Amino acid sequence: MCINLFSDVKLSSKWWGWGDASRSYDLETRPKFFKFLKEKLEITGEIIQQPVSLDSVKVSGTRVEEAFARRLVSIFGENNVRLDDRERFLHSFGKGYLDLICAWNGAPSSVPDVVVYPTSESQIEQLFGESAHWSFVVVPYGGATSVVGGVESRTRDAKPVVCLDFRLMNRVLEVDARSLLAKVQPGCLGPELERELNGAGVTLGHFPQSFEYSSVGGWVATRSAGYESTRYGKIEEMVESLRLVTPEGVIETPLVPASATGPNLLQILVGSEGTIGVITSVTLKLRKAPQSRSYVGVLFKTFTDGIEAVREMMQKEIVPNVVRLSDPNETRASLALASQNGGSLVEKVGTWYLARRGYFGSQGVVMILAFEGSPEWVDFERRRALATCRSFSGFSAGSGPGRTWYRERFDLPYLRDKLMGMGVLADTLETATTWSRLPGLHSKIMEAFSGAFQELHVPGYAMAHISHEYRTGASLYFTFMAKQLAGREEEEWRLIKNRVTDVIVNAGASLSHHHGVGVEHVKWMEQYYGPLGIRVLKAIKHELDPATIMNPDKLLPAS
Amino acid sequence: MCINLFSDVKLSSKWWGWGDASRSYDLETRPKFFKFLKEKLEITGEIIQQPVSLDSVKVSGTRVEEAFARRLVSIFGENNVRLDDRERFLHSFGKGYLDLICAWNGAPSSVPDVVVYPTSESQIEQLFGESAHWSFVVVPYGGATSVVGGVESRTRDAKPVVCLDFRLMNRVLEVDARSLLAKVQPGCLGPELERELNGAGVTLGHFPQSFEYSSVGGWVATRSAGYESTRYGKIEEMVESLRLVTPEGVIETPLVPASATGPNLLQILVGSEGTIGVITSVTLKLRKAPQSRSYVGVLFKTFTDGIEAVREMMQKEIVPNVVRLSDPNETRASLALASQNGGSLVEKVGTWYLARRGYFGSQGVVMILAFEGSPEWVDFERRRALATCRSFSGFSAGSGPGRTWYRERFDLPYLRDKLMGMGVLADTLETATTWSRLPGLHSKIMEAFSGAFQELHVPGYAMAHISHEYRTGASLYFTFMAKQLAGREEEEWRLIKNRVTDVIVNAGASLSHHHGVGVEHVKWMEQYYGPLGIRVLKAIKHELDPATIMNPDKLLPAS
Repeated sequence: MCINLFSDVKLSSKWWGWGDASRSYDLETRPKFFKFLKEKLEITGEIIQQPVSLDSVKVSGTRVEEAFARRLVSIFGENNVRLDDRERFLHSFGKGYLDLICAWNGAPSSVPDVVVYPTSESQIEQLFGESAHWSFVVVPYGGATSVVGGVESRTRDAKPVVCLDFRLMNRVLEVDARSLLAKVQPGCLGPELERELNGAGVTLGHFPQSFEYSSVGGWVATRSAGYESTRYGKIEEMVESLRLVTPEGVIETPLVPASATGPNLLQILVGSEGTIGVITSVTLKLRKAPQSRSYVGVLFKTFTDGIEAVREMMQKEIVPNVVRLSDPNETRASLALASQNGGSLVEKVGTWYLARRGYFGSQGVVMILAFEGSPEWVDFERRRALATCRSFSGFSAGSGPGRTWYRERFDLPYLRDKLMGMGVLADTLETATTWSRLPGLHSKIMEAFSGAFQELHVPGYAMAHISHEYRTGASLYFTFMAKQLAGREEEEWRLIKNRVTDVIVNAGASLSHHHGVGVEHVKWMEQYYGPLGIRVLKAIKHELDPATIMNPDKLLPAS
Repeated sequence: MCINLFSDVKLSSKWWGWGDASRSYDLETRPKFFKFLKEKLEITGEIIQQPVSLDSVKVSGTRVEEAFARRLVSIFGENNVRLDDRERFLHSFGKGYLDLICAWNGAPSSVPDVVVYPTSESQIEQLFGESAHWSFVVVPYGGATSVVGGVESRTRDAKPVVCLDFRLMNRVLEVDARSLLAKVQPGCLGPELERELNGAGVTLGHFPQSFEYSSVGGWVATRSAGYESTRYGKIEEMVESLRLVTPEGVIETPLVPASATGPNLLQILVGSEGTIGVITSVTLKLRKAPQSRSYVGVLFKTFTDGIEAVREMMQKEIVPNVVRLSDPNETRASLALASQNGGSLVEKVGTWYLARRGYFGSQGVVMILAFEGSPEWVDFERRRALATCRSFSGFSAGSGPGRTWYRERFDLPYLRDKLMGMGVLADTLETATTWSRLPGLHSKIMEAFSGAFQELHVPGYAMAHISHEYRTGASLYFTFMAKQLAGREEEEWRLIKNRVTDVIVNAGASLSHHHGVGVEHVKWMEQYYGPLGIRVLKAIKHELDPATIMNPDKLLPAS
């Protein structure tokens, strides 16, 4: 079994950054991007820092008493209880910018005291049973790709932290092809899931940016969204039923397509971020695997034209799988990032011709559309979508930009690691609001970024796209970069994050559309849901976790 | 203002049955139906009973003390506080079969002690404030079309019941046409809402059977479904945000299209059936009003063929607005109900021809399809749907059956009133399950009906249709009729209801897909959600209504 454990698996992966150590984001073939970065961020482009060596990392000793450790071994088996420093260190952070800082410095804010790998639900029930005899808290751990501190090993009253890593509970238990349902264990990662489903001619259709490394349990616990959510919905719409083990016992929601039986129990458990129990299985709604796929890039003269085109598509109930509209800043960054290896927007359509027609002015923007389904549906929907775009002067730039986006869709986190080496803060944040409020919110957030960069006296760059669209509104997804303030990295990041998030919450927009709450968004939760709303969520937590052993400091403000 | 009050409005409506006193279900033009009824239910077809006269009704005196009544008048205004017997009697039942029995006998199980008509949210907050000084419970009252006892005036510890009738809070407050959102007060009835929305070129698209008399607040409080839910979703998917006044204060959920911020607070409040507070406004997601509409009837040789055709449509993501597939029993009853005034299935396609081809054997069934949207979408989707039906030997019977269904879609409750006069028990119940379980569940429920009729020694008839379809399953909607057992009407109904609902819940199917829980489904709730699930719902209730003044006996089993 050892081969499945974290340190063995993950050392082939890049513990101090994103993904696979053998992969990286190729900047060498993108010379224009260096020029862009140097100009916007006043950096040299040289590598100025590296992560510490894993061997040099020192972590605080475990607080687990020997007798409790023996009990854990008797529950989970010797190989599946890990107390060694390396294992504990490797379980101490997610993939947010602050996590990266901690990882590069070899200095996580806290580490778990023991890592256990359950192989069955009954082991987890036994663990909760031990809380009568031993003091501890539990932090559930899936793919650990949280960017909001969702897996941080926070404790309460200095109790030992038991990190529950679901890596060994990763099976697809059952596929009901007649009902398009699959019952899956929480530790199943995206590629493992899709490989098995595709073999049966079906798909879940959930492809978050983290897809290659994130887990089913994590998706469901955090209300994740994939890049096809415009058509297929967020993960909470893909769950038919789930099973949750709480310190007070097991809840399994009825396996029904819909019901009218009071508050939606399923939607109380989805999004609970490990604060009331752990998910031990999820029954997911599937789709037939698509037979046909089509991409197209569309240029607009202004962001406003693009927004109106998206809004009209949604409101005419034209629903491509992907609609991703970059703002002017992101469009310029994308053009700068275009590889010289072909496939770029610029090469596919004559830049000069389009510039003359007003598509490459400073206000020009690009939209990526993707369609997946039966060939006749793809044709029909693509035709309707493009007709709508044309009515807002959208210029179809062919399939090149879309293919490029699709090929590189999981690669951008690798770029962040490279930028980190060059002394660049790079992170993302996201929200969602109604169409009426969206343009104003975009402007206010861009101003907040500028204001924060000025306040910090650092050169910075922010950009956004609209994705995950609805009839009533859409998500706004921001990427921001700034020259790092050496030694003050956390302070720098927090100031930017605070300034922008205040604007989001004050505008009545979503505190998070799909990253979740974790520890980083907790301080806005009361403003977001109101004091009485928070009381409701705390009452649920108190009922299921009266001894407060589940995932401390996540989701809800302390009482 | 008096003109808006219940007794003034509703006396033009039929207090002892469904809808408008000037409308009725015309059986005279449907002579075959009498034959059918006589044969199946062994009744004569003569009118054997009538409702009591309203003037002869006696109700128990109000328990409201004079000082409390004066306080209510100071809050709501003199005209909007009604203590008279007639008003209280008219607020004492909904539209379920047991309600009808009570109404016809003039003997409701309980009556409210006072009926108040709030005109603002602050009046409701003031009322809750009075609970510090006076003992009372509150029963929210919208269109009162509940068929599960949702408006019954139950009390707790003999406290006076304050019935809150939302008839005067019925305005569309705001339409945001850019975001396709409308903010609406809870007392707005279906036709009032659609009239106003249609004027702005939009629609909600929610058309439950009760549409003409039910209210927005009631829909949202009970997770209602309309006949177009297959395409447009249930009401819970049409709510962007809502505002709820609870005894502990106001909760308003964020106005956002989606979020990843913990348990879904909105979906905790939706479906709460007035047990934690009252809805004072709902922001609803709209659609552009459809430009084109098309209906088609399709015949199948067997129910199994029809089910497979529906399942395949859903799983190919072909989504008509309406897919309504009758089982063999309902198909035969529909044929018997066909009017001689034309438009019937039989006249449109030669019965003889179809019978020869196997479509009118005892196993033959009919499906109604409806499509609404842009002309090009209607054409496209209709073509795809019919191609799928043909692959299961579906025979298109043209637009006649669909038009008939559409014309009479709100009329069937009127038929129940007529049948009641003839001494017939007629009621409906519904569930939902996955496609794998659906055929077996249909058989088991039909057996349970037969068993119950036998146990009671009454002639009876049960029939069903599949509607409200999903990729993973569908709703099964049953209509059942039996010869009434005079003097034992409630016992007769309860035995049938219990036998069938036990089968539903034991099979893991939905306790209700869209009727709600009310008082009638409470006893199955713990089995349905499990003891720990019920504890979660009770914890929410306790947090928002610690003095348990809201809607006693509804939704949750007593502690």
